[in-house]
Amino acid sequence: MEQKSLVISVDAMGGDYAPRSILEGVALAAKKHKEAFFFLFGKEEVLSPLVKEVGLDPTCFKIHHSDDVVKATDKPSQAIRSGRNSSMWQAIMAVRNGYAKAVVSAGNTGALMAMSKICLGTISGIDRPAIAAVLPSATGPTVSLDLGANAECDAQNLVEFAIMGDVLYKVLFGLDRPSVGLLNIGSEETKGREEIREAAAQLKEYADKMNFYGFVEGNDIAAGTTNVIVSDGFSGNVALKTLEGTAKFIANSLKKEIKKSPVGILGFLIAGRSVSKFKKSVDPRKFNGAMFVGLNGISVKSHGSADAFAFACAIDSAIRMAKQDLCEKIKDEMHTFMNLGGLNDTEAP
Amino acid sequence: MEQKSLVISVDAMGGDYAPRSILEGVALAAKKHKEAFFFLFGKEEVLSPLVKEVGLDPTCFKIHHSDDVVKATDKPSQAIRSGRNSSMWQAIMAVRNGYAKAVVSAGNTGALMAMSKICLGTISGIDRPAIAAVLPSATGPTVSLDLGANAECDAQNLVEFAIMGDVLYKVLFGLDRPSVGLLNIGSEETKGREEIREAAAQLKEYADKMNFYGFVEGNDIAAGTTNVIVSDGFSGNVALKTLEGTAKFIANSLKKEIKKSPVGILGFLIAGRSVSKFKKSVDPRKFNGAMFVGLNGISVKSHGSADAFAFACAIDSAIRMAKQDLCEKIKDEMHTFMNLGGLNDTEAP
Repeated sequence: MEQKSLVISVDAMGGDYAPRSILEGVALAAKKHKEAFFFLFGKEEVLSPLVKEVGLDPTCFKIHHSDDVVKATDKPSQAIRSGRNSSMWQAIMAVRNGYAKAVVSAGNTGALMAMSKICLGTISGIDRPAIAAVLPSATGPTVSLDLGANAECDAQNLVEFAIMGDVLYKVLFGLDRPSVGLLNIGSEETKGREEIREAAAQLKEYADKMNFYGFVEGNDIAAGTTNVIVSDGFSGNVALKTLEGTAKFIANSLKKEIKKSPVGILGFLIAGRSVSKFKKSVDPRKFNGAMFVGLNGISVKSHGSADAFAFACAIDSAIRMAKQDLCEKIKDEMHTFMNLGGLNDTEAP
Repeated sequence: MEQKSLVISVDAMGGDYAPRSILEGVALAAKKHKEAFFFLFGKEEVLSPLVKEVGLDPTCFKIHHSDDVVKATDKPSQAIRSGRNSSMWQAIMAVRNGYAKAVVSAGNTGALMAMSKICLGTISGIDRPAIAAVLPSATGPTVSLDLGANAECDAQNLVEFAIMGDVLYKVLFGLDRPSVGLLNIGSEETKGREEIREAAAQLKEYADKMNFYGFVEGNDIAAGTTNVIVSDGFSGNVALKTLEGTAKFIANSLKKEIKKSPVGILGFLIAGRSVSKFKKSVDPRKFNGAMFVGLNGISVKSHGSADAFAFACAIDSAIRMAKQDLCEKIKDEMHTFMNLGGLNDTEAP
C-alpha cells in the first residue's frame, strides 16, 4: 500500500449488480490508475472469493469488513439511524477520517447524499451542497448542477452552485475560464424567476473572476452553449431526466423502424462502424458518476445499474477530483468570492 | 362563405417566412378541411397577389386589411400599447367578436399571449391560462402544460392545468379517460416541492372524475407514461427545450459520424426508407402549434420558423379544438370540479 499514494474508498455492496460489477469496475480502474489503492467495504466472506475471480491485483486493495448493507428501498432517515455498520457509512467514514481521498458508491442515492452530508460536513461558506454531473454535448463534456439535491433554491444558492461548477469544470477538464450559464426560460433579462435574475445580477459583478455567460435555456444543454449549466435542483433534475428519456426514445424508435425491414437492417449493418462510433461518443456509461459538491470530502454516486466499465468511469472522476484537490479549490474560490462581497453577507437587510 | 361553417382567423403577417409560408399553409389546410373558411389579416396589397400565387381557392378565404405588423422584437407591453392596428390584434379580435372560432399566428409569442389574454379574457374559475403542446412519445402523442406562461405556480394553478390538460387531450384525441401525470423529481410522495405535493393530494380526491396517475419524472415525457403531463411553466419550458435540444444533438451527431465514412453513407442510403419513416414519425412539424388554454377563445401559436406543412398542422389543431368546442368543455369541467369542492375555495384558511 505504501507506494500507492491515492486511496479510494469503495462501497462494494451498493448497486443492482453489486458486488461483482463493482469489483470488476475497480479492477478496470486499478489497471488504469497505477497510483490508486482501493479500500473495499462490504462483507468479507462475499468479497474475498470475488476479488480473486475478477482478477483484482492483490497489491492494490484491502477489504474492510462491514456487516450491513443499505438497501435501495431504505429511506435516507432510516439509513442514517440504523446504517452505521453498513458498507456505505463505513466507506464514507474512511474519507472523513482521512484514510481515503474519495468515496464511490452505486447504492441508494438519498442515503449516500444524507450520509455524506453528515459524515463529511459542508464546506464553510456553502449553504447547500449540490449534485453535479458531466453530460455530453455538441461542444464536448459539460458540467451541470444542481441535479436534484435542492428542489428549491435562492439566489445565493445559485451563485454558490456557479462557483462550485466553475471549479469542478477546471478540475475535471483543465480549462482556465470555463463559461458558466444560468438555466432560465428565455435569454432576456426580464425572464424567469426572481431568484434567477438576482443570481445573474450578482454573477455579473464577478466578471473578472468568472466567465459568466448569462442565461441559457433547455436546448443549450445538449448544444453545449456553455461549459457549466447552473440550475435549481428541480429544473436540473427534470432537464437531466428529459435528456436521458429523449435519447432513449429516439434510439428505440429508430431501432424499431430499422428492424421492420430487411433492407433497413442491411443498411444498418453496412453503416455499422459509423453507428457504433456515434454510440461510443454518447455512451452514457462514460458520463457515469454524480458528484456531491460542497462537502468537505469527495463523494461520487454511480448509477445503480452501472456495469464494470460505467463504475470504472465513476472512479475516474473521483480520482481526477481527488488528485486536483477539488475541496481545497472550492474553499479557495469561495474565499476569493466572499472577499469580493455579496456572498454570505447575511447581515445585510 | 355561407356554406363554410367554421371560420378560422389567421395572422398572415407573423412568422419568419410570412406571409408566403402562412398562405401556403392555409392552402394546404383548406384542401383538407372543406368546412373551413379563413379570415386572412394583413396588408391587402401584399396578400392579394400572393393568394393567387399560392393557389388559394377563392371561395375559402377573405382578406381583412390591417396596417401594422407586430415585430418579433416587440415587447408584449409595447405590442399591446401600439398594436391595435396590427394583423395579430385584429385576427384575435375576430374571435373575440364572434366572427371566427379560433386564431392562429406564427408571430411574436409574448405579444400573442398577452393580446389573447386581453382580448379573449380568462375562463371564469381559471386563475391562470397556460401554454400547452402536443409532443411525440413512445406511446403516441401526449399533451404537456404549462410550457412557459407561468414561471411560478401554486397548487391551485397545477390542479387547473390538470383539468385543462385532461379536457384538451379528450378534445384532440377522443380518449375517454386520459391519464394525467404531475411532473416531479421522484415518484415517492415525499419528493419535490410543497405545491406539487399539495396538487397531487387534491387531484387524488377527483379519482372518479379524472384518471390521475400520480408523479412522473422528466424521462416519462418521451416514454409516454401518461397522456397528459402537468408542470409549472418553468420546468415545463426547460423540459420542452431540453427535449428539442437533445433530439437535434443526437440527429446531428449521428449525421456527422455517418458522413465521415463512405461506407457509412452507403449504409444509410440503403436504410434510407427506414430512416425516413422514422424521421416522419417524429417530424416536429406535425407537432407544431402551442395552444393557449384557459381563455374564452381558441388561440394557437405556430413556431415562428414554420413552413407551409407545419403551419397547416397548427391550423389542424385549431380546427379540432374549435369543432369540439374546447372552451365550453373546459368551462363545463371546471364547473364539475368546483362543485366537488376544493377548487377556488379562496375563503378557506
